[in-house]
Amino acid sequence: MKLLLIHAKSFEYEAREKALEGAEDIDGRRVGKAENALVVFVTVEEGDSSDPGVVSAAVREIEDVFRRVKASEVVVYPYAHLSENLASPGEALAILKSIESQLSEKGLKTQRAPFGWYKRFTLDCYGHPLSELSRSIRPGEPPKRGFED
Amino acid sequence: MKLLLIHAKSFEYEAREKALEGAEDIDGRRVGKAENALVVFVTVEEGDSSDPGVVSAAVREIEDVFRRVKASEVVVYPYAHLSENLASPGEALAILKSIESQLSEKGLKTQRAPFGWYKRFTLDCYGHPLSELSRSIRPGEPPKRGFED
Ligand SMILES: [Mg+2]
Ligand SMILES: [Mg+2]
Repeated sequence: MKLLLIHAKSFEYEAREKALEGAEDIDGRRVGKAENALVVFVTVEEGDSSDPGVVSAAVREIEDVFRRVKASEVVVYPYAHLSENLASPGEALAILKSIESQLSEKGLKTQRAPFGWYKRFTLDCYGHPLSELSRSIRPGEPPKRGFED
Repeated sequence: MKLLLIHAKSFEYEAREKALEGAEDIDGRRVGKAENALVVFVTVEEGDSSDPGVVSAAVREIEDVFRRVKASEVVVYPYAHLSENLASPGEALAILKSIESQLSEKGLKTQRAPFGWYKRFTLDCYGHPLSELSRSIRPGEPPKRGFED
């Protein structure tokens, strides 16, 4: 799993058209917005389903950054562009839902953008030193931090 | 080298503080903006300097997407978050400058955001099917396209 975490003054998106046959049903979730948000671009990779520790590590990393930057909410944003080794759509969606529900269970205000759709978005990144961070999480390994925090 | 190419209705940035000792001097380039822009987030990786074909392949891929989406200008945006295997700052900056100059030589209106700075940015992604694309380019190999174009 690859995570790109951006601390955004504001973020909003709108699903426009299906990118996949198996695009998620989005009744009532076509648009979303958030302020002072930690936007987490998530690429689920092949093999991530084999180890529930991948999701729990992702949730820990997200919560850690969320608290350090003092964000108000999390947006879990499916993103197919951070890896060449994608999980199947079904696996990816299941994992994205797990991340969302585990963050919610920890008390973090969380929304998840629809999976399998091309989306318009507007993002306003703060630009402080922790406002763009990345993580790579592989089954059975500790999370790797990218540049630089 | 990793490229994340986003077709943006508008994009603007402002360098805020140095992220590296060797941050580029930015007299007069603290801020930038573009409309109908192809914003190319570039992570230069270790080994990219060994093969000039990496830069020329990147330039070909960028020009190809630029023409397909009918963008008006390119923003080459240094980005340390698409790989765990970064080139040295000196190598990265040299390669970013080569990409910029080769795009300009091809007649594409091009700007390059400063290297080694934490930057605030606002990005407005169109959301059509070609508005977010990725490429992975390794020395001696043909470019790999990410999902999906
Ligand atoms: Mg950063
Ligand atoms: Mg896409």
